[in-house]
Amino acid sequence: MGGLSVLSLSGLPEVGQGENLAQLIVGAAGTIADGTIVAIAQKIVSKAEGAVVRLADVTPSARALALGERQGKDPRAVQVVLDQSARVIRAERGVIICETHHGFVCANAGVDASNAVESDTLILLPRDPDESARQIRANLRALTGKNLAVLITDSFGRAWRNGQLDIAIGCAGIAPLDDWRGRVDSFGRELRATWLATVDGIAAATELARAKDSREPVVLVSGLERLVTSEDGPGARALVRAASEDLFR
Amino acid sequence: MGGLSVLSLSGLPEVGQGENLAQLIVGAAGTIADGTIVAIAQKIVSKAEGAVVRLADVTPSARALALGERQGKDPRAVQVVLDQSARVIRAERGVIICETHHGFVCANAGVDASNAVESDTLILLPRDPDESARQIRANLRALTGKNLAVLITDSFGRAWRNGQLDIAIGCAGIAPLDDWRGRVDSFGRELRATWLATVDGIAAATELARAKDSREPVVLVSGLERLVTSEDGPGARALVRAASEDLFR
Repeated sequence: MGGLSVLSLSGLPEVGQGENLAQLIVGAAGTIADGTIVAIAQKIVSKAEGAVVRLADVTPSARALALGERQGKDPRAVQVVLDQSARVIRAERGVIICETHHGFVCANAGVDASNAVESDTLILLPRDPDESARQIRANLRALTGKNLAVLITDSFGRAWRNGQLDIAIGCAGIAPLDDWRGRVDSFGRELRATWLATVDGIAAATELARAKDSREPVVLVSGLERLVTSEDGPGARALVRAASEDLFR
Repeated sequence: MGGLSVLSLSGLPEVGQGENLAQLIVGAAGTIADGTIVAIAQKIVSKAEGAVVRLADVTPSARALALGERQGKDPRAVQVVLDQSARVIRAERGVIICETHHGFVCANAGVDASNAVESDTLILLPRDPDESARQIRANLRALTGKNLAVLITDSFGRAWRNGQLDIAIGCAGIAPLDDWRGRVDSFGRELRATWLATVDGIAAATELARAKDSREPVVLVSGLERLVTSEDGPGARALVRAASEDLFR
C-alpha cells in the first residue's frame, strides 16, 4: 500500500517582479515536512523573474505580420512567440505550435496572456526553468533547513488527445524519470519498455488540487519522499526528447 | 485549499478470466467512501475479459512477416498488433506506433507481454474500455450502494517528451474533460485555451502510488468527489482527438 497526497497552498499574495518565491511559500505554508515536493505554477516564477513583455514595446517583423494575419492573431503577440521559438512546427487553424529554445513543443511557445496583471502584458516561460527550480530549492533549504524537491509546472496540450495536462518544465531535487526498462515484472518476465515520466505525473496531479481561476499557484505533494534526492539532479531537461529521436516532429 | 489523496490497494489476488473485478476490489478494500475514484490498470481488466492471445495460435500474414523482419519483432506478435490497429502511424527503430480501433495512438497498439501469466501470451486492450468501466462501476454500485467513478488506465508514451504517463483509456461516472475555455482568470481576463484532461491527470497520479512490479493494479483516489457524476458520462472516448483535427498524425 503506497500513496501520495496533493494539497494546494492558500494564502499566497500576488507575485511581483523580484520577489523571493521561497519566502512567500514558507510564509504561506508555515512548516514544510522534509521530502515534500513543492510544485509551482510557471506563471508566478516568470512574474518573479520579470519574464514578461508589454505588447506596446513590440514591433512585429514582416514574418509576424504575415503569420498573425493568417492565424488571426495580434502580430505583436506573434512576434513575441517567434522570439521565444527555435522553430515553428505547425501553424494551422489559429494554433501556432512551436519548439521553444528549451526544446519544449507547445502552443504559442508557452507565451500566455492569462493571469497577467496588466492586460497588455504577455508572460513568457522562464529562460531556464531548471535553474529557476534549483534557485528556489536552495532558498527553501536556507529558510527551512529541509531537503525539498521543486517542480515548475505549466499546462501543455498533447498530440492525439484532447485536453491539456500540467507537465514539469523545470525541477530540482527529484529524479525526473524512473527507468524500469530491463527490470522484470511480478512473474519474472522483462517489463515492456517502462520509463515513467515521474515529474510529469506529479505535475499532472497538481492541476487537480486547484481551481484554474484560484490564486493557488503552489501545490505541496507528500508521500513521494522516496523520489526526492539530495542533489539537484538533471532537471526537466531530461524529459525533452531530442528532435533527432522524435518520430513526431 | 484543495487537495486529493491517491492510495494503491493491496491484497488483490491474481486476476483470471471471467472474474468479477468489482467483487475482488471490494473484498480487498472493505468499505469505499462515496465519491471515490477507482482507477484500475488495464491489464487486469483485459485478463478478466479474456482479452488475451496465445502466440502459438497466431499465423502471421506476409505483412506481419515483413514488418517483424524489419523491426526485429516476432512476426506472430506483429500480427496481433496489426489485428488491434486501425492503421500503423510509424514503424521505425523497433517501435511500431499504431492507431488502435479505439482511436488511441500508442506503441504496439497497447498489446503487452509483461504481467501475462503464461509467457507465450499477449494481453490486448479491452475491446471497449468505456463499457468495461461502466460495467465495473455498476457492479461496484450493486455491491457497495455507493456512487463511485471508475477509470481504466494504461501507460502510454508521448510525442516530444521522454518517458511514459498513465492515461485513462476508459472511464465512467466522471467528466473526462474540464472545460474552462472562455472563462475568466482571477483578474477577469479570459483564460488561455484551458481544457483540462481531468481523467488523464488522475491516471498519471495513480502510477506514482504503486511500484510497477507490485501487484497493486487498483488505486483509490479521494478528494475529487466534485468530479464524480451520477450518470456514466461520455467516457474516455471524449479524449480521443479525431484524426481530422490532429496536427500530428
